[in-house]
Amino acid sequence: MSGNSFGRLFTVTTFGESHGKALGAIVDGCPPGIDINEADLQLDLDRRKPGTSKHTTQRREADEVKILSGIFEGKTTGTPIGLLIENTDQRSKDYSNIADTYRPAHADYAYDQKFGFRDYRGGGRSSARETAMRVAAGAIAKKYLKQQFGVEIKGFLSQLGPIEMALNDWDLVETNPFFCGDAEKLDELDAYMTALRKKEDSIGAKVSVVATGLPPGWGEPIFDRLDAEIAHAMMSINAVKGVEIGDGFGVVNQLGTEHRDEMSPEGFLSNHAGGIVGGISTGQDILVSMALKPTSSITTPGKSINRKGEAMDVVTKGRHDPCVGIRAVPIAEAMLALVLMDHCLRHRAQNADVVPPIPPIPSQA
Amino acid sequence: MSGNSFGRLFTVTTFGESHGKALGAIVDGCPPGIDINEADLQLDLDRRKPGTSKHTTQRREADEVKILSGIFEGKTTGTPIGLLIENTDQRSKDYSNIADTYRPAHADYAYDQKFGFRDYRGGGRSSARETAMRVAAGAIAKKYLKQQFGVEIKGFLSQLGPIEMALNDWDLVETNPFFCGDAEKLDELDAYMTALRKKEDSIGAKVSVVATGLPPGWGEPIFDRLDAEIAHAMMSINAVKGVEIGDGFGVVNQLGTEHRDEMSPEGFLSNHAGGIVGGISTGQDILVSMALKPTSSITTPGKSINRKGEAMDVVTKGRHDPCVGIRAVPIAEAMLALVLMDHCLRHRAQNADVVPPIPPIPSQA
Amino acid sequence: MSGNSFGRLFTVTTFGESHGKALGAIVDGCPPGIDINEADLQLDLDRRKPGTSKHTTQRREADEVKILSGIFEGKTTGTPIGLLIENTDQRSKDYSNIADTYRPAHADYAYDQKFGFRDYRGGGRSSARETAMRVAAGAIAKKYLKQQFGVEIKGFLSQLGPIEMALNDWDLVETNPFFCGDAEKLDELDAYMTALRKKEDSIGAKVSVVATGLPPGWGEPIFDRLDAEIAHAMMSINAVKGVEIGDGFGVVNQLGTEHRDEMSPEGFLSNHAGGIVGGISTGQDILVSMALKPTSSITTPGKSINRKGEAMDVVTKGRHDPCVGIRAVPIAEAMLALVLMDHCLRHRAQNADVVPPIPPIPSQA
Amino acid sequence: MSGNSFGRLFTVTTFGESHGKALGAIVDGCPPGIDINEADLQLDLDRRKPGTSKHTTQRREADEVKILSGIFEGKTTGTPIGLLIENTDQRSKDYSNIADTYRPAHADYAYDQKFGFRDYRGGGRSSARETAMRVAAGAIAKKYLKQQFGVEIKGFLSQLGPIEMALNDWDLVETNPFFCGDAEKLDELDAYMTALRKKEDSIGAKVSVVATGLPPGWGEPIFDRLDAEIAHAMMSINAVKGVEIGDGFGVVNQLGTEHRDEMSPEGFLSNHAGGIVGGISTGQDILVSMALKPTSSITTPGKSINRKGEAMDVVTKGRHDPCVGIRAVPIAEAMLALVLMDHCLRHRAQNADVVPPIPPIPSQA
Repeated sequence: MSGNSFGRLFTVTTFGESHGKALGAIVDGCPPGIDINEADLQLDLDRRKPGTSKHTTQRREADEVKILSGIFEGKTTGTPIGLLIENTDQRSKDYSNIADTYRPAHADYAYDQKFGFRDYRGGGRSSARETAMRVAAGAIAKKYLKQQFGVEIKGFLSQLGPIEMALNDWDLVETNPFFCGDAEKLDELDAYMTALRKKEDSIGAKVSVVATGLPPGWGEPIFDRLDAEIAHAMMSINAVKGVEIGDGFGVVNQLGTEHRDEMSPEGFLSNHAGGIVGGISTGQDILVSMALKPTSSITTPGKSINRKGEAMDVVTKGRHDPCVGIRAVPIAEAMLALVLMDHCLRHRAQNADVVPPIPPIPSQA
Repeated sequence: MSGNSFGRLFTVTTFGESHGKALGAIVDGCPPGIDINEADLQLDLDRRKPGTSKHTTQRREADEVKILSGIFEGKTTGTPIGLLIENTDQRSKDYSNIADTYRPAHADYAYDQKFGFRDYRGGGRSSARETAMRVAAGAIAKKYLKQQFGVEIKGFLSQLGPIEMALNDWDLVETNPFFCGDAEKLDELDAYMTALRKKEDSIGAKVSVVATGLPPGWGEPIFDRLDAEIAHAMMSINAVKGVEIGDGFGVVNQLGTEHRDEMSPEGFLSNHAGGIVGGISTGQDILVSMALKPTSSITTPGKSINRKGEAMDVVTKGRHDPCVGIRAVPIAEAMLALVLMDHCLRHRAQNADVVPPIPPIPSQA
Repeated sequence: MSGNSFGRLFTVTTFGESHGKALGAIVDGCPPGIDINEADLQLDLDRRKPGTSKHTTQRREADEVKILSGIFEGKTTGTPIGLLIENTDQRSKDYSNIADTYRPAHADYAYDQKFGFRDYRGGGRSSARETAMRVAAGAIAKKYLKQQFGVEIKGFLSQLGPIEMALNDWDLVETNPFFCGDAEKLDELDAYMTALRKKEDSIGAKVSVVATGLPPGWGEPIFDRLDAEIAHAMMSINAVKGVEIGDGFGVVNQLGTEHRDEMSPEGFLSNHAGGIVGGISTGQDILVSMALKPTSSITTPGKSINRKGEAMDVVTKGRHDPCVGIRAVPIAEAMLALVLMDHCLRHRAQNADVVPPIPPIPSQA
Repeated sequence: MSGNSFGRLFTVTTFGESHGKALGAIVDGCPPGIDINEADLQLDLDRRKPGTSKHTTQRREADEVKILSGIFEGKTTGTPIGLLIENTDQRSKDYSNIADTYRPAHADYAYDQKFGFRDYRGGGRSSARETAMRVAAGAIAKKYLKQQFGVEIKGFLSQLGPIEMALNDWDLVETNPFFCGDAEKLDELDAYMTALRKKEDSIGAKVSVVATGLPPGWGEPIFDRLDAEIAHAMMSINAVKGVEIGDGFGVVNQLGTEHRDEMSPEGFLSNHAGGIVGGISTGQDILVSMALKPTSSITTPGKSINRKGEAMDVVTKGRHDPCVGIRAVPIAEAMLALVLMDHCLRHRAQNADVVPPIPPIPSQA
């Protein structure tokens, strides 16, 4: 395959360019009988939608998803679910000047080297607009996991440039344009972003996602470890340059006596591992963080070359988020949901029907 | 699949437990005509081999690899290459006390929850001993990539606990037991490790790998990005808890004007991206780092439970590296080689036979 | 995956039910730079379209395919091609009586056993209407194979009930409603079909497909042999119950001296093998035949049961082809094109860049 | 992948050449807790073994399989099962004359066109010797399916040249060298084969396999239909040129009223479909037949060319079965077992945990 599919048993394949006719996806392998309607998907799409705050791109997309197949009388049938979002707001003129230019930190040069040419309108296939379909597909996985297993997947912004944020309040996360769960930092964020926009610059961010309620025993040993596939999923999100599970890079300076999560009959005594050991879930919370680079599209001119290899300055006009990390929160949730859903089905396939199960201990003491 | 295969076109499947009869692998999809013999594979296996310094486990394995198929008159035939390492030094007695106990930070509990029971001898399938086969398979990929494209893949230890190391000298890396390329830190490392052994504790580490000479245009958009598959590969190595490409988590506090790698007709002006943009190689060096947790097997007692859920203290006897990160260097190289080899073949499959290629710019100004 | 994808490198995934909102497909892995437009796809869709003769179903579908992505300025970009056919003529009333009944020889009972319930409108996902997307996707493969390699793929009806047909005239095949290449049998066919319709019965058929111009060396040894994947592809077409390569079941009573295709410097002296030996193409014509069962939907009442397990008689109303085999001709061509396209890309991926090629002999003496 | 793996969830990957050091396989995805030992595998290997009658090749291979991993204390652990058969009887001299010659009906020419050169000793990878590993892997699947579901898979020889055989007695099948279940034909077979050997010729055959006890609902719609994957599996066996499910090519001249398997509360009234409708099992017996070409290696000289394209006569010396179809019986059983095992696990993965199941009807009235 050419890299547009994700998952082995719950498989999402997407298509569509930023300024093409439509974005679409096929979700294959969804178990039958789940109540799914367009509103379920729209909920997360709206959380990701551009144009909802002055700190995100002013490009407005209705981003209205249609379900074309796989649902009958309100329930999934087990056959592939076809999803479609028609592109409505396409200001192609904004992008015409970049047809022959390689914008620094954009995929323009790499795409031309791979394919020989590219659909340059709005970044074509390399635009983060593609992630809308991931969010729609992830909403199906989220609903199944919650309904059948009580698994919940929630993300938040844990750092923006120099501003680190605690997670004090999950409810707060959904009521501010930053997915910030730290009430004390909201003003600082607002001020920072306003200053940034004036400088015509952009900034990186760190996003964290948590899955609670996962049973122990999901995952695979060796290559397809749960953490390895989560790393794959997160690093496949536009702009992500690093992924951590549990303490992540913090483990480099940890002693064995510090790091190891001791166990008692009442449950685990800590969760440095982030809920995954040996590639398999322990029943503790899954903790994932990722680093996102600053938005590449900025109006401050940068040095570059054109298709002929000639030097030139590039200014990226158009409507762009100064921090792509913010809107990555629902995307990261969706990707985690897709990984967990896939491993849920794999676990069921391979699980012992011969060996009696061992009762799990509590996830926390 | 159950997670014991890696790669779509150059596919490595491994088997074997730490204290079973043998470890083995099948390498499927290797192009025909490459000169490969057992000595090519042994070279990297010996770099990974335990018992080569006082700072690694004293368990001695000959780790002699045999090629059972796929090579004829010294050349690969294009058919699957069967690899085998027989286990010779198996002190099963060392591990008998852990049959019913869940060692903290080990996969024991997770495996029992997944499979209902486990081969507890030496950690069975969850032991890092499995990675010997990855190193053997990776050596084939390394040889092909070097011979056909001039790609070189080399790793080093970039941090051990609090000690950060520069890379000043690639030659030094191969002549000390730490894969350290920073002459000034060798004494400090030695002293730190000696003290650690006395404390009966272990420590985390950071490993970095570099691939030079890669052509631009390798990789895939969307889910199977080159960086996403590298993250997958690295996170599948035992003990890895974080992965970075290029500046990694450093990007969180970078401005767009800082991060973007500007271009000139003479080449790229920086390499914050680590050689990959939009999931596709730019022709610059691929830069990967990973965090490895401290060795879980330490002789300092820890709180745990047994199979019946009863509290007990656990001491892991046996012969263990106090820092598993050190020996991970050749493993990380091998995994990077497997990803690049796979994308080399995918690139060739999908590459344009219709569109004329664009000449690449130099990888550095 | 749940079985809605075909191909490893040129991957087609389809969605859509007979009476749902739309049918769709994603074609992933198409090389960049190929001239493709909607008319290219429509050509084969029109050959498959119902309602074109009195001998096929009178249900009329415009079957107009739209390309939603993956094409830019008339050329494939290497990114996924999204295809859509909206359903326009949906007489749902015709099917409402079968909601709780299991029509004999239909997938109704099997689907209910697998999924617990089903979209019964027009057979839902089990309807051959799904194959429209295969034909559309196959047209892309056909165009590429012809343009880049000169490969041509053509099918014809070789038997209908008791009437066996020779292939005397490829031009004739496209000018009669039976895809018949045997001028002498046209009247007999017409008379047979007219009588059949009066009897309210249906009949089986045999379809043959030929690929010419294939280079030698495409295919894989062992499990993914070219012939094995062709068998897979053909047996995945609705109603197919048997597949033959070359002489097929004729080989059961052949001697080794008869069957073996001898070779001379001027070329092969015969083609009993049908162009594939050891799973790999020889450069001769690929010859494939398949058996299709009689249409299951007939108005002659049959014994059956309902969802509660109660006995009842079933009459399938609606508009159905009395011989589904006829319209299978373009579908079989499309499936062969998909297999060959996939192996074309795989061959390119794995082919020797080290070993010098051997000049092929002519395909025929 | 390069075609040496079969199955998505129960995945078998094989390696090894006819005259190499060893044959091997990895069975990945086997559920834990199944009692498996080497004797279980040896049973079917001995049924396939050459040298057991005067009518099969006199080459003697001990074919003793070793289990190298994945079994602990007599039970599968859920980790990959490594299998190995060392080659002991290798008369390489017999084959040295064919190094530069293309034997008609052999894979020699096709392999050279694909790979540029080949391991010519005994046919290398293209030899049916590889199927020993399929039989060993299939034995694991057989045991699981029988133990957990009561599924039994048995094959027999249904035709040899002009001699058609009924299946009157399953017990007889295992007590004669032809896998013949028709007592009246045993003398005729013996006489035919003796005459054939004197003529230095070979003959084709038809093999049939039956699976009983399969629950309804296994399989997938569209591309990965149960019958499509069976066709794939069977056509991947050396020498197979045709595959039928149920009535197979008999359906070409069947009326819809004849073919359709009517249903009653007491069960199905016939089984023309061979137990599969819409790609999904109905609970009836799975009926599969396949055509195998005559052995290519015969001592009667044939016209051919050498590597340089020069004309020459070829005589294949060595020890060969005059009818390869006979020994294909246990191989066909194994391949059917692998397909059913894989779909068993897929079914479990995707099956409804939401929708209540419908009680199945009996498989026969």
